[in-house]
Amino acid sequence: MDVVERDLRTLDEVCDAIRTLAVRGAPAIGIAGAMGLVVAVAPHAGDPGTAAPERAAFDAAVAEAAARIVRARPTAVNLAWAVDRVVRAARATSGSPPDALAAMRREATDILDADRAMCDAIGRHGLAFVRDGATVLTHCNAGALATAGIGTALAPVYAAYAAGRRVRVVANETRPLLQGSRLTAWELQRAGIPVEVIADAAAAALMARRRVDVVLVGADRIAANGDVANKVGTYGLAIAAAFHGVPFVVCAPSSSIDPGTPSGEAIVIEERDPAEVLVIGGVRTAPAGAAAWNPAFDVTPGHLVTAIVTDAGVRRAPYNFRS
Amino acid sequence: MDVVERDLRTLDEVCDAIRTLAVRGAPAIGIAGAMGLVVAVAPHAGDPGTAAPERAAFDAAVAEAAARIVRARPTAVNLAWAVDRVVRAARATSGSPPDALAAMRREATDILDADRAMCDAIGRHGLAFVRDGATVLTHCNAGALATAGIGTALAPVYAAYAAGRRVRVVANETRPLLQGSRLTAWELQRAGIPVEVIADAAAAALMARRRVDVVLVGADRIAANGDVANKVGTYGLAIAAAFHGVPFVVCAPSSSIDPGTPSGEAIVIEERDPAEVLVIGGVRTAPAGAAAWNPAFDVTPGHLVTAIVTDAGVRRAPYNFRS
Repeated sequence: MDVVERDLRTLDEVCDAIRTLAVRGAPAIGIAGAMGLVVAVAPHAGDPGTAAPERAAFDAAVAEAAARIVRARPTAVNLAWAVDRVVRAARATSGSPPDALAAMRREATDILDADRAMCDAIGRHGLAFVRDGATVLTHCNAGALATAGIGTALAPVYAAYAAGRRVRVVANETRPLLQGSRLTAWELQRAGIPVEVIADAAAAALMARRRVDVVLVGADRIAANGDVANKVGTYGLAIAAAFHGVPFVVCAPSSSIDPGTPSGEAIVIEERDPAEVLVIGGVRTAPAGAAAWNPAFDVTPGHLVTAIVTDAGVRRAPYNFRS
Repeated sequence: MDVVERDLRTLDEVCDAIRTLAVRGAPAIGIAGAMGLVVAVAPHAGDPGTAAPERAAFDAAVAEAAARIVRARPTAVNLAWAVDRVVRAARATSGSPPDALAAMRREATDILDADRAMCDAIGRHGLAFVRDGATVLTHCNAGALATAGIGTALAPVYAAYAAGRRVRVVANETRPLLQGSRLTAWELQRAGIPVEVIADAAAAALMARRRVDVVLVGADRIAANGDVANKVGTYGLAIAAAFHGVPFVVCAPSSSIDPGTPSGEAIVIEERDPAEVLVIGGVRTAPAGAAAWNPAFDVTPGHLVTAIVTDAGVRRAPYNFRS
C-alpha cells in the first residue's frame, strides 16, 4: 500500500477527491469539504497588497464552489452540514472578501478542532472498556483514517495505548470493500499497535477459541431506542458477541444519534452494486450472470448493544434518546 | 469460469489432479483416487489377446500406484480409504491380472455408485426441510462438485427442485477461498436453480430483512454429541440462525459421524496460510507485514443444530451417537 498525501489546491481537486472516495468517513468528508471550500475560494478574495474584489463577486464564487462540493457526494449529510457552516460564517461577516475568507478559515479550523476533540472525548469515555492486556475485535474502519483525530471505534484503543496499556486488535477484513484489511490494519500497524486480520466469518470462532475482551464498532446512525445502523456485518457480530457474553460497544459522535428516528425499522438501507461482491480485485469470482445482494449497512437492535460511547459520555441499554 | 472436464489417463495425471486440488470434496477425492488407480494400472494387466503378465508384477504395480496416489494428499482420509478398498479387491482375487483388474474396476464403480446413492438418500431425507417456495441459505460448497452425486448440503435442494418445488438459494461467498461464489453459485446456476451470492457478513441482515426458511450446511466431522466441524463461518451462521429462529440443518454422509470423538473440543482445527486472507486474486489488500488468523474450520455446538440429515435418516437434537 502506498501512502499518498494529497494537497488539494483547486475546486476541481477537492470535488474529485470527495467524489472518488479518496476521502472517506463521515467526519473526514465534512472536514475535507469545509477546508476545500476555503482553499478553492481563496484566489477570489484577492492577493495581499492589491485592491480586494467586490464582495458580491466573492459571495457568488463561494456559493458556486459550495454547491459544487456538496454535489460531489449528495448523500453525505456531514459534507452538506460542514460546507454550510463555512458558507454561513462568510455571510455573517460584513467586511471585505479577505475578512470573509478569514472568517471561513476560522470556521473550518473550528470544525477540524471540534472533530479532534470529539475523537479524544470518545477515547477518554471508552477507555474503561479497554483494560491492560485487552484483545479488541473491530469491524470496518472507524479509525484515524475516517476522522481528523483518533477515530471513533478505535479512539478507545488509541487512548489505551497512549495510557501505556497493552492492547491488541483483531480486524474483520470487512467484505466486500475490505476496509478492515486495507485501512484498519494499516493505520494500527503504522501506530505500532499489534493487529491481526481475520475473514469476517471467523469472528464467532475467534470468540469461542480465543479471548475477545470487547467488540468496538462505529455507527452511521443511532435511533432513539439505541438501534445502530453501521457497516454490514455489524449485526452478526453483535449476535455472536451476545452469545459469547462479550461486551459489544458502539463508539460514535453524539451527532450520530438521531432522536427523530424512533427505531432501526425507519432506517433505509442502501443496496450497492452486486459487482462489489462478485468481482474481487478486477477478477470475477462468481459465474457470469450470477446475482448478488449487497446491502451497505445493517441494523443492530439496541438490546444487543452493551454501551454507546459518544463524546458526551457513556450510555448503557436500555436506550431512550430524546432531542 | 471455464468448465474443464479432464480425462485422467496416466498415474501422473491422477496424482497431479488430486494434489493440486483439481479434485476437491472428500467423496470426490476418494472416487477420483479409486478410479484413477484402476486407470493407472490397466496397462500392467496386459492387452487382450496377448499372454497376461505375471500376477506378482501386476500386484507390485498396483501397490506402487496406490502408494503414490495416497501420497498426493496424505491428509485426505477418504482417499486412503477408497484406494485401500480397491487394492484389497485385487488381493482378494486369485486369478490372472485381467481378472484382478476387473475386480478393482467393480470395486471402484461400487464406491462411485454408493456415493451417488448416499447423496440421493440425503436428498430424500432432507426434502422435508425444503418446502415449495423455500429460500435456502448455505455456506461453502457441499454440492455436486464435491461428490459423485447431488452433493450433501445441496442434496435436499436438488431433490426439492426435481420434485417440482420452487426453491431459491442464497450462497455465502465463503471467504477466504470463495467456494460459495466460485462453486455453489456456478453449479446451481448450471442446474437452473435461482441463486444469489452475499458477503458472509450479510447473512444475519438477510435473516432479519428477508425470509430465510432454512440454513443447509455440510460437515467435515460430527462428534458423538452432535458438535459439527465444518468450514469456518458455519458456527456464526448457526448462532445467527438460532437468534432468528431459522432451522439450522447439517447434511452429511453417515460416515462423517465419529462416535469416538465425544465432543467438538477434541477436534483439532487446521490453521491455514494467512496469505489466503491477506492476498486476494494475487493482490495484497492488507499492509506488508500484517498478520492474519486463518482457521480452516470451526465447531458448531450440537445444541445449535436443529437436525442432522444423513443417508441413514434424520436425527434431531439432543444428539448421542454411538458406534
